[in-house]
Amino acid sequence: MSLDDSGYSGTLLEKLSLLKIKIGDTIKITQGGTEYTGVLMPRSQIGADSAHIVIKLKSGYNIGIRLDEDAILHHIQTTKRNHRKSSSPEVERANLQKVSILSTGGTIASKVDYQTGAVNPALTAQDLYDTVPELQNYANIQAKVIMSILSENIRPTDWTKIAQKVVSEIKTGSDGVVVAHGTDTLGFTAAALSFALQNLPVPVILVGSQRSSDRPSSDSAMNLIGAVNLAAKADVAEVLILMHAETSDSFLYAHRGTRVRKLHTSRRDAFQSVNDYPLFRIESDTIDELHTPLLRRDKDRKIALKTKFEEKVALLKTYPGIEPLLIEHLIDSGYRGLIIEGTGLGHTPDCIQSSIKRAIDSGIVVAMTSQCLFGRTDMNVYRSGVELLEIGVISCEDMLPETALVKLMWALANTKDPEDAKNLLLQPLVGEIDLRSEESEYVPRTGRF
Amino acid sequence: MSLDDSGYSGTLLEKLSLLKIKIGDTIKITQGGTEYTGVLMPRSQIGADSAHIVIKLKSGYNIGIRLDEDAILHHIQTTKRNHRKSSSPEVERANLQKVSILSTGGTIASKVDYQTGAVNPALTAQDLYDTVPELQNYANIQAKVIMSILSENIRPTDWTKIAQKVVSEIKTGSDGVVVAHGTDTLGFTAAALSFALQNLPVPVILVGSQRSSDRPSSDSAMNLIGAVNLAAKADVAEVLILMHAETSDSFLYAHRGTRVRKLHTSRRDAFQSVNDYPLFRIESDTIDELHTPLLRRDKDRKIALKTKFEEKVALLKTYPGIEPLLIEHLIDSGYRGLIIEGTGLGHTPDCIQSSIKRAIDSGIVVAMTSQCLFGRTDMNVYRSGVELLEIGVISCEDMLPETALVKLMWALANTKDPEDAKNLLLQPLVGEIDLRSEESEYVPRTGRF
Repeated sequence: MSLDDSGYSGTLLEKLSLLKIKIGDTIKITQGGTEYTGVLMPRSQIGADSAHIVIKLKSGYNIGIRLDEDAILHHIQTTKRNHRKSSSPEVERANLQKVSILSTGGTIASKVDYQTGAVNPALTAQDLYDTVPELQNYANIQAKVIMSILSENIRPTDWTKIAQKVVSEIKTGSDGVVVAHGTDTLGFTAAALSFALQNLPVPVILVGSQRSSDRPSSDSAMNLIGAVNLAAKADVAEVLILMHAETSDSFLYAHRGTRVRKLHTSRRDAFQSVNDYPLFRIESDTIDELHTPLLRRDKDRKIALKTKFEEKVALLKTYPGIEPLLIEHLIDSGYRGLIIEGTGLGHTPDCIQSSIKRAIDSGIVVAMTSQCLFGRTDMNVYRSGVELLEIGVISCEDMLPETALVKLMWALANTKDPEDAKNLLLQPLVGEIDLRSEESEYVPRTGRF
Repeated sequence: MSLDDSGYSGTLLEKLSLLKIKIGDTIKITQGGTEYTGVLMPRSQIGADSAHIVIKLKSGYNIGIRLDEDAILHHIQTTKRNHRKSSSPEVERANLQKVSILSTGGTIASKVDYQTGAVNPALTAQDLYDTVPELQNYANIQAKVIMSILSENIRPTDWTKIAQKVVSEIKTGSDGVVVAHGTDTLGFTAAALSFALQNLPVPVILVGSQRSSDRPSSDSAMNLIGAVNLAAKADVAEVLILMHAETSDSFLYAHRGTRVRKLHTSRRDAFQSVNDYPLFRIESDTIDELHTPLLRRDKDRKIALKTKFEEKVALLKTYPGIEPLLIEHLIDSGYRGLIIEGTGLGHTPDCIQSSIKRAIDSGIVVAMTSQCLFGRTDMNVYRSGVELLEIGVISCEDMLPETALVKLMWALANTKDPEDAKNLLLQPLVGEIDLRSEESEYVPRTGRF
């Protein structure tokens, strides 16, 4: 990344230019008797004055320092220049695995747009790599930008594209693939890749960040390093999401791609496994396996590749006062599938039951999940549930509503007969559903209680 | 409740009839040298043989005992008969507060339908009272069945009816009102009563149960006793939900009615405060206040009564692949409000933005919440959010999507100008929104980690 585009200005920018320091260089600054050593980071311009510098410490944590005139003019020096000419290290190290990083956009690949003040997905793979030079200690990296989309705009056709790009990397010898992606719909994409790329030979690690890399307290470097480490070394061949496990930089969790949800709008530990436990705990360079069985690495295993998704599938959350008109409109618009996020054990108001019946009679696959999030649907307990089962609604057990939506999109696109899609929906394929898990295991606990 | 309808059969039913034992009586059974004393409970017939008896122990816990022939014929005796002729104790005790119990249906007022095997809301107020005779130690009780509806079928018009019934009880001198309600939509109704009955003089405690009272491990008696205790004694005048705090019968939590969600399909501790802490902890008879400020009791305070709700308000959860057609159809169907459950900090796919704009231009109030559940919307961070704010979408901050839906239904029904409704939406009225809470405070932690 060039300095002009990095958010620095005034005397500080002039001095950095004069010293030929670039983003990604390791620098040492002395001010007030304290010495700071770290990697120079791009800087958010919002609310910061021109004397403010951001460096990433060895701990992985970004700090912002307000420099005085004397420090700017006399006490900045380069200790290591980290620029590479291509997005991969010039020399491949024979003892390291090959890891591909595919960037799709999102905060982890974002920087602040200095005109609007909003964050845009704009870092190149080179930028990504330049700002986290430690990556080269974990693997021989191939970094590519495959799209540049804020994840709220990712569509099912993008899942197909990402899946195909992942396969290309695996076919050309990657020992693991990291997909950098926005966090908003990271769970949906992880579920999509889980179904599209079954029978994987190597791991596919999706990673995001909750704070962009030009902000102090960014989690992007630590998450990216953890993802590359996991992709290179962990004995697993599943689709996982790797993010902070706590709000501090203490350790990371890798969650199964079909069992994870963004459960906080802003915290760095927003991602939580739901109805499952995280599969790995990563602290510094140590990878601990938490949960078996896992699909293990096997480079000879052949991927079962089915990358299509049917877009005519809707997710509908029920609520008191819901009217039949939304379901009626989906039927009339040629929809092929409907995931209901009902209440409790899998119930809907009686007033929409006849529309649900009409949907099923029209050949639409209708399946039930719960807005409770934790636990499983059980439609045999109350009358409302029993009646829905009788008209042909499928109970999705302990599957997340998002995962059920993605799975139904996938099942309808990859089968000819809707009956086959229905059967696929309840068949455990990649850990997305467990017909036996106990209610005692998973429960959210809020806050400090 | 008559014995015929209580689920007992065969020799056991004959013996109970002979001894004139009814549901709610305290009985003593001796078998194999062990003595069991407890209140006779109705019994689920599903999967149980005719020698199976259910009693509620003094601890509040139900146990099922399989009796041998000898025990049935010779070792059952009544130690206390608990029948009352009316739904209130015959003698009012002067030192106790007056508490009204209004039953609306749901599991807490349910029993198993022995024909279909499903659970139906069928207990009368008398049944409810008979099976929990300890209630008379906490308050002078007035119990009434005001409706008998599984909570998935509760509509906004029912909220109005419940609110009016609660007011009647308060006007005739209740020191606190308990509303027994199904758990599926308990959170919605609690939010509705919170807005409809502002400026309360006494507390309104909503209570449900996750297991019907004819099942061993029912939580209904303990929850009901806790609710009556809280209604009679706690120095609060807000709408609260009281449920188990843990899966064991250890203690209860009372949550603020606008800040609570059913977060598990089946666990007894399914209800969790979201973006807030529980307000009270109840262990045995001890009520601990956890969180201030609270609106305190004041019998002279006059209720601000606004019980109407506009039904033409929808809740829409976004997902990858969502099409504009659902929003377009809501506009064409005369809707007046729309709560979007967007992703992350409050985003939607760009492809539905022009429909959202058309909705707002048509006079529909559109407001944003997050499907992350925890945290708050902040639409100033990313481009998608900024653009939605510019076209007039309201950011609901840390309000629950369900609470925002109910509040918008209420605001639109009780104002003439949609602008007033918009202003009301973001105005903190009953603790439903906090413009200053910090992200560090609330986060869900899953399972045993």
